[in-house]
Amino acid sequence: MENPANTDLPIHELLRRRYSPRAFAPRAVDEGALTLLFEAARWAASCMNEQPWRFIVATQEEPEAHARLASCLVEGNRRWASAAPVLVLGLGVETFARNGKANPHTWHDLGLALGNLSLQATALGLAVHMMAGVERERAREVYAIPEGVSVITAIAIGYPGDPALLPEDLEARERAPRVRRPLDEVVFGERFGEPRSRR
Amino acid sequence: MENPANTDLPIHELLRRRYSPRAFAPRAVDEGALTLLFEAARWAASCMNEQPWRFIVATQEEPEAHARLASCLVEGNRRWASAAPVLVLGLGVETFARNGKANPHTWHDLGLALGNLSLQATALGLAVHMMAGVERERAREVYAIPEGVSVITAIAIGYPGDPALLPEDLEARERAPRVRRPLDEVVFGERFGEPRSRR
Repeated sequence: MENPANTDLPIHELLRRRYSPRAFAPRAVDEGALTLLFEAARWAASCMNEQPWRFIVATQEEPEAHARLASCLVEGNRRWASAAPVLVLGLGVETFARNGKANPHTWHDLGLALGNLSLQATALGLAVHMMAGVERERAREVYAIPEGVSVITAIAIGYPGDPALLPEDLEARERAPRVRRPLDEVVFGERFGEPRSRR
Repeated sequence: MENPANTDLPIHELLRRRYSPRAFAPRAVDEGALTLLFEAARWAASCMNEQPWRFIVATQEEPEAHARLASCLVEGNRRWASAAPVLVLGLGVETFARNGKANPHTWHDLGLALGNLSLQATALGLAVHMMAGVERERAREVYAIPEGVSVITAIAIGYPGDPALLPEDLEARERAPRVRRPLDEVVFGERFGEPRSRR
């Protein structure tokens, strides 16, 4: 399935084609492609070049490791994401390595890294679905994640699959029109909340 | 100037070419291109499709508005970013519209939106430099930013310029090699901190 964004303007093809599927094809992601995704993430910008992102990765080639990672998802995500050939936890180091001070940009910078990863995935014909619904304490225990490192997000990765194979409620969500707020609700000029007057 | 990432693997050209310049060419960004950047940001993924990102934009075509936004940067950024033809503040709504509850993914999702914006910029020959150094309380006052909305980042946008025109210390930083942590320091398998064994 393809599910391109219904954009008002011709944004770059990779950005237009990116979407977050729940249906994944039963096709493995080879190691070369997987490494390329993290290489893309690695070159994101970050505050003071701290690179606070960390990732835990499991693939279906190692069923036990994959099941362990799936067990850290909330039930509502586990029911579809368990079929994704690759599962990832996105973590963030909450302090700067150089001085131990709090890094308020950790979550933001993980977002930049995952933006890169998503676009690289799209370029390879893969798709990525990020999930806020993670059992954070369980993940911390399973992977011995130390204090000072946040469990931020989970990511399902694979080739997009056939939504008809999803449970009915999820298929409906997969086929629902994609919507976004209009630009005038998010881009302001003189004051917060006042649309920027475009010339 | 071009300053591509010195990647270990052939990531997508847009990701490889993206970098954060301090030197901008004295060339305006036309309104069509600018709108396209925010259209790209708009189509990012977000937690519950909340789209918590908000932007305040000023261009050099309106010198007063541009100076007002520049006045919200910390001095270390103002000295070079004032020359960027477009300045933006990146804000985040900290609660979900549907129920008023805290949205822990606001900063992360602004990162995703700015990842999209950066890649669209690269595709147009533009470059983006994000800055954590913002005078947050001043920005809040100048733009009447309400409680519950965070001032997260500032963004300089323009066509890359000649680093030789920068002050000497900034030119040196602009020409310094680009570095990142190796993948084994950020991608783990069985436990946090243990590199994933790749097959």
